Amino acid sequence: MTLRIIITGGTFDKRYDAIRGQLTFKDTHLPDIIEQVRTNIPITFELNQLVDSLDMQDENRQLVLGACRQAAEANIVITHGTDTMTETARVIGEAVAASDAALAGKKIVLTGAMVPYSVSGSDALFNLGSAVMAAQLLAPGVYIAMNGRCFPWHSVQKNRSLGVFEGDAL
Amino acid sequence: MTLRIIITGGTFDKRYDAIRGQLTFKDTHLPDIIEQVRTNIPITFELNQLVDSLDMQDENRQLVLGACRQAAEANIVITHGTDTMTETARVIGEAVAASDAALAGKKIVLTGAMVPYSVSGSDALFNLGSAVMAAQLLAPGVYIAMNGRCFPWHSVQKNRSLGVFEGDAL
Amino acid sequence: MTLRIIITGGTFDKRYDAIRGQLTFKDTHLPDIIEQVRTNIPITFELNQLVDSLDMQDENRQLVLGACRQAAEANIVITHGTDTMTETARVIGEAVAASDAALAGKKIVLTGAMVPYSVSGSDALFNLGSAVMAAQLLAPGVYIAMNGRCFPWHSVQKNRSLGVFEGDAL
Amino acid sequence: MTLRIIITGGTFDKRYDAIRGQLTFKDTHLPDIIEQVRTNIPITFELNQLVDSLDMQDENRQLVLGACRQAAEANIVITHGTDTMTETARVIGEAVAASDAALAGKKIVLTGAMVPYSVSGSDALFNLGSAVMAAQLLAPGVYIAMNGRCFPWHSVQKNRSLGVFEGDAL
Repeated sequence: MTLRIIITGGTFDKRYDAIRGQLTFKDTHLPDIIEQVRTNIPITFELNQLVDSLDMQDENRQLVLGACRQAAEANIVITHGTDTMTETARVIGEAVAASDAALAGKKIVLTGAMVPYSVSGSDALFNLGSAVMAAQLLAPGVYIAMNGRCFPWHSVQKNRSLGVFEGDAL
Repeated sequence: MTLRIIITGGTFDKRYDAIRGQLTFKDTHLPDIIEQVRTNIPITFELNQLVDSLDMQDENRQLVLGACRQAAEANIVITHGTDTMTETARVIGEAVAASDAALAGKKIVLTGAMVPYSVSGSDALFNLGSAVMAAQLLAPGVYIAMNGRCFPWHSVQKNRSLGVFEGDAL
Repeated sequence: MTLRIIITGGTFDKRYDAIRGQLTFKDTHLPDIIEQVRTNIPITFELNQLVDSLDMQDENRQLVLGACRQAAEANIVITHGTDTMTETARVIGEAVAASDAALAGKKIVLTGAMVPYSVSGSDALFNLGSAVMAAQLLAPGVYIAMNGRCFPWHSVQKNRSLGVFEGDAL
Repeated sequence: MTLRIIITGGTFDKRYDAIRGQLTFKDTHLPDIIEQVRTNIPITFELNQLVDSLDMQDENRQLVLGACRQAAEANIVITHGTDTMTETARVIGEAVAASDAALAGKKIVLTGAMVPYSVSGSDALFNLGSAVMAAQLLAPGVYIAMNGRCFPWHSVQKNRSLGVFEGDAL
């Protein structure tokens, strides 16, 4: 089993810019995190983009879809902002449903964080661990792994007032 | 889906005792961690014991086995020290193999940490996330979820010089 | 020696609001921090306000000045946002210079943080430690303790592009 | 003002060794910490030794004394284990009292931590900030800065059951 992690930014990778006094993007924490958790899964990191998912446009989602299509790995985790994670999942899920041959047999799991990895009390590591596991155990398809649950792409929404994903979990 | 987390201590839950100048047990971090990760999975915590797994004797493992047998939940995560995690997994796995009716249909996943949750650079949250996910997606049985992988109880060992679990992962 | 810590917010006390996705104020970390550092200095905490110092108006600074005047303690540390810390220091310093009897003999030290206490890599604890020490060792007056240095209120400015305080340090 | 930080190890610099499952020494955190707190004080780091202060022998303390004597800087902070910090302070303090010319005019402040920098809830940054400030504001001499207070070397002891330093603070 080999794994590709497609990185798109989101709250997961935000860090504090002391000069500007705000959370922003500078680089991804993913390689450091993976080293920290001592996995010997062969992992390829792909820095697809570093954006707040509220700023994601169609072309941003197409970039993610393209990365999934071109991936040589069958197991894929995508880190993504939570606000529009379900929309990107839908773009990929609908491509799978339309029998896109480049996605056949792939297990694609989107995950993210409600609190940045660099902030105390973050859920980033927990969610990432759940997504890496889901990408191994699931049948091919497109899923969201958040809050300890795994949802098929077509039956999940973010409850924005509670800050949790809801739907028909597996 | 409801989940039981059976807590046995291990490196996962060690914390620094400033007076004695060493890592020891005081209480479990699990309820705080679960609150931090915002899951709405109904979880029951069971503080079974708080021990270093190197100190675990037969009676300690029987306590864990008993907790699995008595659990009303089909989905069980056990936090455990890494040094003898495979031994406890074996005790439970062999009970399942001997057709223990109280274990029928249960998905039991052991996990732990190489670095305590309270120490920077910990793998605790990642491993816990992977175990919670595995406990939902797996077929009934006894497993170890460590280093991002999931191993059946009978085909896993800890490589003590590298600090990683190896074997035939799912 | 007794110490009063007058809390006004600033980056020091900001924490991440997962629902709104931004850094904001909820409560102060000061009592927890002081417990963490095991001091047996008798400390009184005064939650004066919780604001970003960019939002501070004259009345906000008068609130801080009033707190200094009414304090029974001669040793005072004020936590404050860095962007207008020198302005509040000036308001208090000019009152001292005008021989305000209620400020006579008081050692008043403003401090803050460039990175919130709740964010990894924070300078909050270091600055607070330096300010608490300065409030004991200095002659009466009004000072800013930042970046490991102590500046009289009238000879310090924040270099906003570098994120450090500069001037004629003691 | 220039500052020399003489590093001797102690709880301050201990970090968790995941393979051995214990706190040990690997390297010092001091340069990273100083970068984190954005000071523009010119600081020279001297890695004198990395030991648990319970293991310090006479020759270890002579190494520290020698470093203080040879330092070109008048302002010196020493990081040190708490258990025998007062003993090393005494060795240096008695050399000053014996009119050691190489120590004349020097401000020497020992500090440390009850909880390692790498463990959550550490007092390391707070103590270091207080020591750096004390090394600037004090008259020449030998001091211990711990728990937010500053003690002359001859009137301080560690209360081991409470984990705090006590004595006649300045």
